[in-house]
Amino acid sequence: MALKLDVVGAPLEPVRHTYSWRDTVIYALGVGARIDELDYIYEGRGPKVLPTFAVVPSFRSLGQVVGALGASPMSILHGEQTIRLTRPIPPSGELVTRAEVTGIFDKGKGALVVVVARTSDASGPLFENEFSLFVRGEGGFGGPRGPESRPAAPPDRAPDFATTQATAPEQAALYRLSGDINPLHIAPEAARVGGFDRPILHGLCTYGFAGRALLAGACGGDPARLHSFAGRFSGVVFPGDALTTSGWQIGEGRWIVQTTTQEGKVVLSHAVAEVAG
Amino acid sequence: MALKLDVVGAPLEPVRHTYSWRDTVIYALGVGARIDELDYIYEGRGPKVLPTFAVVPSFRSLGQVVGALGASPMSILHGEQTIRLTRPIPPSGELVTRAEVTGIFDKGKGALVVVVARTSDASGPLFENEFSLFVRGEGGFGGPRGPESRPAAPPDRAPDFATTQATAPEQAALYRLSGDINPLHIAPEAARVGGFDRPILHGLCTYGFAGRALLAGACGGDPARLHSFAGRFSGVVFPGDALTTSGWQIGEGRWIVQTTTQEGKVVLSHAVAEVAG
Repeated sequence: MALKLDVVGAPLEPVRHTYSWRDTVIYALGVGARIDELDYIYEGRGPKVLPTFAVVPSFRSLGQVVGALGASPMSILHGEQTIRLTRPIPPSGELVTRAEVTGIFDKGKGALVVVVARTSDASGPLFENEFSLFVRGEGGFGGPRGPESRPAAPPDRAPDFATTQATAPEQAALYRLSGDINPLHIAPEAARVGGFDRPILHGLCTYGFAGRALLAGACGGDPARLHSFAGRFSGVVFPGDALTTSGWQIGEGRWIVQTTTQEGKVVLSHAVAEVAG
Repeated sequence: MALKLDVVGAPLEPVRHTYSWRDTVIYALGVGARIDELDYIYEGRGPKVLPTFAVVPSFRSLGQVVGALGASPMSILHGEQTIRLTRPIPPSGELVTRAEVTGIFDKGKGALVVVVARTSDASGPLFENEFSLFVRGEGGFGGPRGPESRPAAPPDRAPDFATTQATAPEQAALYRLSGDINPLHIAPEAARVGGFDRPILHGLCTYGFAGRALLAGACGGDPARLHSFAGRFSGVVFPGDALTTSGWQIGEGRWIVQTTTQEGKVVLSHAVAEVAG
């Protein structure tokens, strides 16, 4: 079926999201937070919220987009993700997210749908998500190919930080409690339908592991210093894989990030972060 | 301060507890459920609920008891736990728990407070918990010493099942999301105040690990077969310890259970289970 191209620029119904410290801890453990990251997993210390938690309150907006596009949920791959943060995320909150499709591009084999979701609380704008969704089989409609991707190859030198952490076999089971309950990530039969031997980890879970490594390696552990983080999901991760996230500072407050598996396969590429001094 | 002994037999205010599949999964992962126990961690398979989840909806009743006794929460050790199940626990529910203190016994160095909490849903009685709380420094009031404990030493032969599973360093951080947020289990400073070098695992988390081993080893994986499970918390477990739970069938549907750490220290003793054929 053809995508409804006229959704571009039309604002979607605002989505409300209320969360408590328990939800931020479930998220932090879901993206592998360790016992020495107590500020993020114990409400009595800190409490701080991982910057990549920003993807959680806007996740339901994606369901709206898929509905508005008339796309099959099974045809969608999450291609890229960007978060832009105005200030640190509070440990609990009542948020409103307003999403809109900002572009639909023709990539030949599929369509690339770009969604921007802006989230506020009572104090004003808090963060913004940009989701790039690749819709398989929906290309060839004669639309523009869209902008070229940002150049973000790591420099040819040793990284300024590199962190390796194993994901647990139960990582996706835990991560999905933050909202993305697609069975592709837990049910063997759903994984087979999706073309995988076994369930795969959520791209946004990998993104959370990378975000924690970035926070420690480039932000001195201070979530207020991370202004933006963008990356492309370029390879499949299975729960149980070990993820190595490396970072190279390439300018004042500007980092290139890359995440690989134990086999050296790049799973998060074209990743850049802006960090305050 | 002296305990208010006249609370014995007085019914406490009923406590309501609503839960969803997400809560049963958080619990299951909190007590170490693995990816091959999909019925318990994925709402689309099964879904089944671990029998030891019975401790969760009645946990708030313990707070009532501590208040009614006039006891300091810091003086209380969880001594023993029994669950008795009428039928399998539904994957979601609205429950009501009615608790009462059934006895306060004088153990010299402290008082032993026995609480029975009965939980029902709209279909009738569901399960019953018996909590034994040891209140340090509150003995010597001239009361009865109470009944002798059940004899439950393992027979002098190899067990009929034995299962070893490591707890994660983050096990208590995850388990506490099921309701017992006592900082003793996560904050180093609270652990030191409690007399421990570092945070200790919840006794009921150990109980959940033992319950999973019992379910697999003695109940053929069928939660409907577990009728009761009683045990004593006889040693300290630290997150990261490996727990070995062993079971000996000592009669028709009757099992003795014991859990030890990697050092061979017994941490769950006097443990018996009734299993249907």
